[in-house]
Amino acid sequence: MDFAAKIRLIKDFPRPGINFRDITTLLQDREAFPKAVDAMAGLCRGIEVDLIACPESRGFILGAPLAYAMGKGLVLFRKPGKLPGKTLQYCYQLEYGSDALEVHQDAILPGQKVLLVDDVLATGGTMAAAVELVKQSGGQVAGILFLMELLGLGGRDKLGNHPVLTLIKCDA
Amino acid sequence: MDFAAKIRLIKDFPRPGINFRDITTLLQDREAFPKAVDAMAGLCRGIEVDLIACPESRGFILGAPLAYAMGKGLVLFRKPGKLPGKTLQYCYQLEYGSDALEVHQDAILPGQKVLLVDDVLATGGTMAAAVELVKQSGGQVAGILFLMELLGLGGRDKLGNHPVLTLIKCDA
Repeated sequence: MDFAAKIRLIKDFPRPGINFRDITTLLQDREAFPKAVDAMAGLCRGIEVDLIACPESRGFILGAPLAYAMGKGLVLFRKPGKLPGKTLQYCYQLEYGSDALEVHQDAILPGQKVLLVDDVLATGGTMAAAVELVKQSGGQVAGILFLMELLGLGGRDKLGNHPVLTLIKCDA
Repeated sequence: MDFAAKIRLIKDFPRPGINFRDITTLLQDREAFPKAVDAMAGLCRGIEVDLIACPESRGFILGAPLAYAMGKGLVLFRKPGKLPGKTLQYCYQLEYGSDALEVHQDAILPGQKVLLVDDVLATGGTMAAAVELVKQSGGQVAGILFLMELLGLGGRDKLGNHPVLTLIKCDA
């Protein structure tokens, strides 16, 4: 299936001059969405995985069905103050200002192999923070999986030597 | 499976005196999470569904795997400014202040039967807004499905005569 053809381009979002790749048209497609999840799971064949983890909030859209399809537990990485239990936190820089990501202290056990999942790899800032939280937790990053990769933004360069797998590739 | 036993109680979150039911321990469980999704799908047997729709962001965690498991498209209801295309908006009152939910104008087609999904039914405010957005879109609410219902908060009373299905029931 040509998954890229299911993605809509919206001009000038969120700022003038930016062409936003809108995945909601793929998600709404009852044939394309399950097939995209299956194809993402297929990219991970051969990678040993104990847990799926995904950052808030669009990461949940792919991470949750992958955990279901692969029969793995799901760990949430959330913005500060959202998780009710004791958390680990990692702060990271954005183009303007900073942000932070949290995970429950007891969510990832030492040595567990974690597959990180998000919708789009752009500059890689959020996912680099997620990698740090896996390490802080004592887990291992088994792989990093995206529905789509925007080429030319240097996202892969921020993700170290971990396997980075992307189903759809397109120019930013 | 005793799904309620997989949910953790955290005292004094988000405010002193509130006992928060934390579903992340269920999500992290590789046996419980897929079985909970299957059991939620099972509750909807006999309900005709064209689309699954779910509010940001914890709704995504259950709505996305249900769309995958049931072979349906997934529609996102998001906070203002997050969806890139033209949207419909519905504002609603919270205990303190107000909030709003948006959906793409072209996400739900007239007459489509929509299954609304979220994690927890508490006071029902967010889901009542989602119901209004389905109606504004010209769609029909086929049913409203939650992983967990907190009893005694009057949530069901806000959801009209639509079928409300909940997998786990516990006291608030």
